[in-house]
Amino acid sequence: MDDTVDTVMEVLRGHASCRRYATDPIDDAPIREIVGAAQRAATSSNLQLWSAIVIRNPATRSRLAELCGGQPHIEAAPVFIAWLADRSRLDRAAELRGYSQDTSTLESFLVAAVDTAVAMQNATVAAEAMGLGTCYIGGLRNDTAAVIELLGLPEHVFPIAGMTLGVPARPSRRTKPRLSLDGVLHCETFTPVDDQTLFDYDEIMRATGIYRDRHQPGTRPDGSAAEQIADDEYGWLEHSARRVSAPQRPNLSEQVRRQGYRLA
Amino acid sequence: MDDTVDTVMEVLRGHASCRRYATDPIDDAPIREIVGAAQRAATSSNLQLWSAIVIRNPATRSRLAELCGGQPHIEAAPVFIAWLADRSRLDRAAELRGYSQDTSTLESFLVAAVDTAVAMQNATVAAEAMGLGTCYIGGLRNDTAAVIELLGLPEHVFPIAGMTLGVPARPSRRTKPRLSLDGVLHCETFTPVDDQTLFDYDEIMRATGIYRDRHQPGTRPDGSAAEQIADDEYGWLEHSARRVSAPQRPNLSEQVRRQGYRLA
Repeated sequence: MDDTVDTVMEVLRGHASCRRYATDPIDDAPIREIVGAAQRAATSSNLQLWSAIVIRNPATRSRLAELCGGQPHIEAAPVFIAWLADRSRLDRAAELRGYSQDTSTLESFLVAAVDTAVAMQNATVAAEAMGLGTCYIGGLRNDTAAVIELLGLPEHVFPIAGMTLGVPARPSRRTKPRLSLDGVLHCETFTPVDDQTLFDYDEIMRATGIYRDRHQPGTRPDGSAAEQIADDEYGWLEHSARRVSAPQRPNLSEQVRRQGYRLA
Repeated sequence: MDDTVDTVMEVLRGHASCRRYATDPIDDAPIREIVGAAQRAATSSNLQLWSAIVIRNPATRSRLAELCGGQPHIEAAPVFIAWLADRSRLDRAAELRGYSQDTSTLESFLVAAVDTAVAMQNATVAAEAMGLGTCYIGGLRNDTAAVIELLGLPEHVFPIAGMTLGVPARPSRRTKPRLSLDGVLHCETFTPVDDQTLFDYDEIMRATGIYRDRHQPGTRPDGSAAEQIADDEYGWLEHSARRVSAPQRPNLSEQVRRQGYRLA
């Protein structure tokens, strides 16, 4: 049992998103194992409200790379998996028994998104245990109208995230520091984050240099050009603050509604 | 490496929700390992949009059991973890840099919910590798106004799911059959589920007897009392069809909005 814990924790702790892939193809067998592992994750009331589309076609992957924001690893990875909230099966299940599914509430969408996310995380763990590299692609939600058309998604099916999958080009990847455990772990009731936790983490992240060449463009609140922030001041705080200060994917709710979720 | 795959796949494949707990307490050390494993999961743009509250207080757990729908394992398990979408840290991060966070869009809520879900799934995998039992509690979204008050959740913090954690009372739990892999795995584009897949799965589930003593109440579409369905006809199809035919948690979106997400 101790061996099991050590082995699993090593896989979980070793996670790093993989953005450089070797050209090696990935067989069907490991992909079926990976999606099979996703199926073993818990699912709300055993409704199994998700689907996965495995995409190898280079033209489709090239188009997806464009739609997701031009990330080159989407074209480079041999496999792209689209993880979808999917209540279309339940439409049919309900119909076969003479019922009709209610998708009027935000909950009906949220629970499917959560089902999808826990499933795809099992897939990530399985893939990394196999020595494969993965990277979630939130950009699959950039232009969902186009994604829905490209992949032929019917009513009540909605893209939650993409995932690139392949053999890593470099054997060992760098894990990214996270907030201190006590920055996310609360005891009995919620405690607001203290500033020192954020400053300490910012310092750790500035030391890694991860954000140095990834300046978010824009204008700072004081009117100065965002690019003029000194490199050594540009870390997790400034980068993240810029990211969250703009409305994120403002067309998403309209597209979710078009797929038949009323979000009431 | 083969050993790693086998060990990890055995843990993933062995998942079953645990609803019977021994009285053994759980130390802080494994809980910190488990939430630490959650932190290693991918997080959108490294924003880390979640928090976990570890609850041991019996009175709080008893109240949570009530709020979540009276499930006895919530009181029986020594630990309850509330998994929360949390953008409150980013409010402060933005403020410290002179920005203010935009939470107007559905995306700003959805991405936090997905971040939370992938993190909590890593926690599940870590806990099960340690031989501990867990069960997700979607009922934490039943009465979020009361949960928010009980746990003291500030603006932009919202409960996504609960999790019971403890030593299983029975050593080996029964894994639940899932839809056939090809029922959820699509190739290149989306293919609607075929009826045979649903009928086959219904037959498998009826054979397990899992739903036999868990009749959902209600009235069938033809006006007959739902309870009058013969036991051998009551399986995944009828059970799931009933569940999804009623509006699910219709007060959720109002509560999400009260926590400061506009869902536009």
